[in-house]
Amino acid sequence: MIATQGYAAQNAKAPLSPFNFNRREVGMYDIKIDIQFCGVCHSDLHQVRNEWGGSIYPMVPGHEIVGKISQVGAGVTKFKVGDLAGVGCFVDSCRACANCKVGNEQYCENWLAGTYNGYEMDRKTPTYGGYSKCIVVDENYCLKISDKLFLPAVAPLLCAGITTYSPLRHWKVGAGQKVGIVGLGGLGHMAVKFAVSFGAVVTVLSSSPSKESDAKQLGAHNFLNTKDKSSISKAKNQFDFILDTVAAEHDLNLHLSMLRTDATMVLVGIPSDATPVHALSLIPKRKTLAGSMIGGIRETQEMLDYCATNNIVSDIELIAMKDIETAYARMLKGEVRYRFVIDLATL
Amino acid sequence: MIATQGYAAQNAKAPLSPFNFNRREVGMYDIKIDIQFCGVCHSDLHQVRNEWGGSIYPMVPGHEIVGKISQVGAGVTKFKVGDLAGVGCFVDSCRACANCKVGNEQYCENWLAGTYNGYEMDRKTPTYGGYSKCIVVDENYCLKISDKLFLPAVAPLLCAGITTYSPLRHWKVGAGQKVGIVGLGGLGHMAVKFAVSFGAVVTVLSSSPSKESDAKQLGAHNFLNTKDKSSISKAKNQFDFILDTVAAEHDLNLHLSMLRTDATMVLVGIPSDATPVHALSLIPKRKTLAGSMIGGIRETQEMLDYCATNNIVSDIELIAMKDIETAYARMLKGEVRYRFVIDLATL
Repeated sequence: MIATQGYAAQNAKAPLSPFNFNRREVGMYDIKIDIQFCGVCHSDLHQVRNEWGGSIYPMVPGHEIVGKISQVGAGVTKFKVGDLAGVGCFVDSCRACANCKVGNEQYCENWLAGTYNGYEMDRKTPTYGGYSKCIVVDENYCLKISDKLFLPAVAPLLCAGITTYSPLRHWKVGAGQKVGIVGLGGLGHMAVKFAVSFGAVVTVLSSSPSKESDAKQLGAHNFLNTKDKSSISKAKNQFDFILDTVAAEHDLNLHLSMLRTDATMVLVGIPSDATPVHALSLIPKRKTLAGSMIGGIRETQEMLDYCATNNIVSDIELIAMKDIETAYARMLKGEVRYRFVIDLATL
Repeated sequence: MIATQGYAAQNAKAPLSPFNFNRREVGMYDIKIDIQFCGVCHSDLHQVRNEWGGSIYPMVPGHEIVGKISQVGAGVTKFKVGDLAGVGCFVDSCRACANCKVGNEQYCENWLAGTYNGYEMDRKTPTYGGYSKCIVVDENYCLKISDKLFLPAVAPLLCAGITTYSPLRHWKVGAGQKVGIVGLGGLGHMAVKFAVSFGAVVTVLSSSPSKESDAKQLGAHNFLNTKDKSSISKAKNQFDFILDTVAAEHDLNLHLSMLRTDATMVLVGIPSDATPVHALSLIPKRKTLAGSMIGGIRETQEMLDYCATNNIVSDIELIAMKDIETAYARMLKGEVRYRFVIDLATL
């Protein structure tokens, strides 16, 4: 075993604190990544505090991982020592189901191995995430990372990036389409960057008018204050696609009203409770409400390559490991633009 | 004006009773249909009793209309006197919007003229439906009816038929697909007939185990009691498509759990209140919840032609006009298999 260090939650109420644990030895097809940066996803906080239930402790969070490869197994063909590599939200899947076979490992029918707060496919070895000095992962679940981009700002692409890129690609968002992005947080700001880059006419839909200037700076063409009834009314049946990134309770029917005939709104945020949807929000213009979860390994690599070519990264604030609880508190207040990233050199 | 007779509700509480009113003169492009049969849709009752709000009185319900043409305007090219013809849920639309232009008049962006409880496109002339002796409609909003089928059983195709045919076609339901039909009423029994005819493997999903034998008689291959948790659990992620025809409150998340990755559930029934949908019912397998409303004129004609070729009609119980209130009462108790049809010769 490889002794390493990280920051862990020991239970739902305790602050994160230093934690010594072991990574497995580097197997035939494994690579060992010395973690340089790890993004702080809102889902880290949900899981640390057991807000979704079923949390496994001690928990080392973090699934937006980038670093340098320090060791590779004898069978590894895609990576070599010294390469940059990344790990996203999962570290393995069944590899046998229909979804895994077509590269949709994120929808593995036998449930994938989450990067943390989960178990390896043996269903008994707990997984520990990226708030740590190193990680050992099968090369097939790792991503190649370009050295052309500012590395700390690449980390959030592994979750916030792919979570927004994948639905925009799956529903073929492109040139000239009117696209609405609901919410302007870690996910929303990446959604704006991608949708603009794909040629869409992008409107940020937000209940905080103070976000208008930020939305425009990120490249959005328009801003719609969802508390302004006349704006909502004017936007009725207007959008070709809406990506809803908000995890707090909000009125889905209001946003559905702004979709045009046959258009789709996709949820990527997870409110803790079910949200009322009226059949009349969908039926009269054959509208669609869908969900989307991260992306497969192949598509995540495609997204990273697209970002390297088009110079797209996340807007971040770099923090020291010891400041994670302060970062969580600020995240809860919406005081991050738009992603905290931990500099693991500070651990 | 053409004096005629029908049955109307004078307000939300009054029983339907005889009503004398006028149809417009037959215009250049109009046809006059002497109504022989009119289906009784559950939405007739909702609107008669103002359960959806905004009802217009006096109200002559009925939008599943078939009869014989007794007069045609000078400019009419598609029909001649003596032909059978039908009218469905709308009698006009704006004819200019993008949806009308592609034949999706049902999604008219300027709101269509409902066959009853609505207004003509002049927005002031009230429309009266098929619980009456005749109707005058623009030929472009009328359907050709085959004389090969049992005419009373054709009437419900104009609403229950197209409402289920359209989504099955739009989402390309076909051979070998596992299709679930939720609810076995007027809409559900037509959905079963169409899905079976299209080659799907059809399961009726119902909370009434007593409906199993009926489901099988209609051609369904399987029956799933949605109150049986182990059946639900076994069906998890199994269906390629689910058509939900239920207008009463029910648990959409339960049915969504049975969709496979990337599959769609379509609502055609309208519960009076919004229904809670959990983001986690959609996100983890990229599932879709959509709505669909009746169908356009071209698709309705395609459906009627398909029914004539494949000998598909509704299962009906013929009633006299004076028995409409009894029929409503029985409909509320679920005592109709599967559609009441009024014989207008009894008026």
